[in-house]
Amino acid sequence: MPTISKKGRLMPESPIRKLVPFAEQAKKDGKHIYHLNIGQPDIKTPEVALQAVKDNTVEILSYSRSEGSETYRTKLAAYYKKHDIVVKPEDIVVTTGASEALLFLFSSIMDPGDEVIISEPFYANYIAFSTATGVNVVPAICDIDDNFALPSIETFEKLITPKTKSILICNPGNPTGYLYSKQEIKQLAALAKKHDLFLIADEVYREFVYDGETHYSILQLEDMDEHTILIDSVSKRYSMCGARVGCLVSRNKVVLQTVLKYAQARLSPPTFAQIASEAALDTPQSYFDDVIAEYVDRRDTLIKELQHIEGVKVGSPKGAFYCIVELPIKNSDDFAQWLLEHFDIDGETVMIAPAGGFYSTPGLGLNQVRIAYVLNKESLIKAVNIIKEALKVYKD
Amino acid sequence: MPTISKKGRLMPESPIRKLVPFAEQAKKDGKHIYHLNIGQPDIKTPEVALQAVKDNTVEILSYSRSEGSETYRTKLAAYYKKHDIVVKPEDIVVTTGASEALLFLFSSIMDPGDEVIISEPFYANYIAFSTATGVNVVPAICDIDDNFALPSIETFEKLITPKTKSILICNPGNPTGYLYSKQEIKQLAALAKKHDLFLIADEVYREFVYDGETHYSILQLEDMDEHTILIDSVSKRYSMCGARVGCLVSRNKVVLQTVLKYAQARLSPPTFAQIASEAALDTPQSYFDDVIAEYVDRRDTLIKELQHIEGVKVGSPKGAFYCIVELPIKNSDDFAQWLLEHFDIDGETVMIAPAGGFYSTPGLGLNQVRIAYVLNKESLIKAVNIIKEALKVYKD
Repeated sequence: MPTISKKGRLMPESPIRKLVPFAEQAKKDGKHIYHLNIGQPDIKTPEVALQAVKDNTVEILSYSRSEGSETYRTKLAAYYKKHDIVVKPEDIVVTTGASEALLFLFSSIMDPGDEVIISEPFYANYIAFSTATGVNVVPAICDIDDNFALPSIETFEKLITPKTKSILICNPGNPTGYLYSKQEIKQLAALAKKHDLFLIADEVYREFVYDGETHYSILQLEDMDEHTILIDSVSKRYSMCGARVGCLVSRNKVVLQTVLKYAQARLSPPTFAQIASEAALDTPQSYFDDVIAEYVDRRDTLIKELQHIEGVKVGSPKGAFYCIVELPIKNSDDFAQWLLEHFDIDGETVMIAPAGGFYSTPGLGLNQVRIAYVLNKESLIKAVNIIKEALKVYKD
Repeated sequence: MPTISKKGRLMPESPIRKLVPFAEQAKKDGKHIYHLNIGQPDIKTPEVALQAVKDNTVEILSYSRSEGSETYRTKLAAYYKKHDIVVKPEDIVVTTGASEALLFLFSSIMDPGDEVIISEPFYANYIAFSTATGVNVVPAICDIDDNFALPSIETFEKLITPKTKSILICNPGNPTGYLYSKQEIKQLAALAKKHDLFLIADEVYREFVYDGETHYSILQLEDMDEHTILIDSVSKRYSMCGARVGCLVSRNKVVLQTVLKYAQARLSPPTFAQIASEAALDTPQSYFDDVIAEYVDRRDTLIKELQHIEGVKVGSPKGAFYCIVELPIKNSDDFAQWLLEHFDIDGETVMIAPAGGFYSTPGLGLNQVRIAYVLNKESLIKAVNIIKEALKVYKD
């Protein structure tokens, strides 16, 4: 048979995917699984978004504009203004999820062999988009003992080579929950300017910031319009992961025009999802207040429960709804699989994401897992108890 | 500022895009434009599909499976069976439009520098997907005087080099309306087998076949399971271009697994659109009977009217809803722009797609345009009359 591409062979499989058959078997065996492995919240989508789709009056479901509908982009610009991000509708290209925005952006600004520096651990699919576009990931390794803060700017600067084209951060971070300070963002900006690099921030968790902290967007930076590119999505903000609507925002016209050529090639983002996303912008603040209170409560519960387990180390996430947890084990891939295959308490077990997939540096993260606190408090307590009891009997 | 990628600079702009500012100006000037330039039908989306979206009971709009929902793929397999295409649900990966299917497929089976042979003229975005993936397009030139039939297999075979990885056809064809015969498909299959190539068919216009002809799918070929890959979409079939749901179908497991890795990286196809697409499979046959009768009527009207114009040559399309028309002019880019800028009859003008964008061979198609017969008969008659009168005064 004809061979597939080298690139296709190199494309990583989702690190969680390997566990899916074991989860399916556990379900077949009648076990209940607490899913702490994915960022799929159990929070309801705002009614205003769902109702807009039910009330739609579409008769011919036609293409929208490649850059997204005019009305949606206009309302989006107003949304950003409320967050002290001043952009025009024409600075926005609506995409099919943040995933497409990243894929089109990587293709637009980097050629095969170019390098992107990403603070590590990072969202696993950044590796997939890099592989798909032939770009090399250079990790800026962050440490659980520093709560995943950026390494010193001197250390960071040493990673820059003639091949470096961009720096990518996720703020607040998946999988760490780390919230970058204004000071850190300004340091990265100075570095990007000095070395003429693009500075990309994936800010899909913007709303999920806790403990009275403030989110500082890279688009609030002054004098950085040529360098800064924001990646965004409705998925987490409105618990609308299935909509598949994201966007790319920049004041750099050449970047926008190039991304738009990719967007034109795929014709348009999905229409129903744009209707939902536009309506979601009218979600009342009370929705977010409730959701954020809920996540803070979950986070506090999760961390308190985890700290009761001997040999466990956990950071102090300030945003998003994930944390990286270090366990007293050698191999979290094996432990995660073992949990599904061989451990339960009263027919209940836990699915967690082994953290190796969030590191590009070989050997890092092997004793860590990512926990998404996307379940209610009661479930979280039960799930952590399962991990606690499991660690007592698990043998590396 | 940091430079964008070489690939990004090479990405083609949509050939129609250049005309958009002139169309917008014409509208501002109060002119009515007959849009014959895009494949956006004026046909209503089936009620069953629209109603399913209105009736949806989603409370948390969550990710679906990366390969598409189980129920949708199961019903899709049944749909294919009705068209004598025997596939299993697991042979299908649901994508965000045929566009995404093509992008993921090109990435999966071809590396930069590899070659894909495409019968020319072809759907303009094939060039965009090739550029995005660094693949070189080798055109198999088809002639309006042969009604765009394939060149002889001997001629075709000469295009194959050690770099050739695949052959791509669109059947029935956009922009030509050409329907490949079973004989031609079998010849291409023999060639693909002999040279160990993938054979890809974009069959999004499967239902739009006229004059009692039968569509022969590449997945009906026997003993070609390792080679054949079908690209499909709901966009044209159900006049649901804005849904953004397509799929890739193959019995080659390695291809499916590789495409799935790209699909996993972008998480899932849009949920509301999958609900619509699944429901659309229950569209009654009467809908298609009516739509096809309408398109035949439009095609016949269009061709009859065009043949009344001196110096015009037009093929005899057997499927889809496009035709390539040769005009007594030197440069159709210029003519199309001139129509929007400088010509109208009683405030009405026409937008047509210059055919140069459908050819990769420099110089070809410059005296041709593509006309999409997506408007009603009365509008088509008026539009062709505008072209006729325009040609009398237009100076190259």
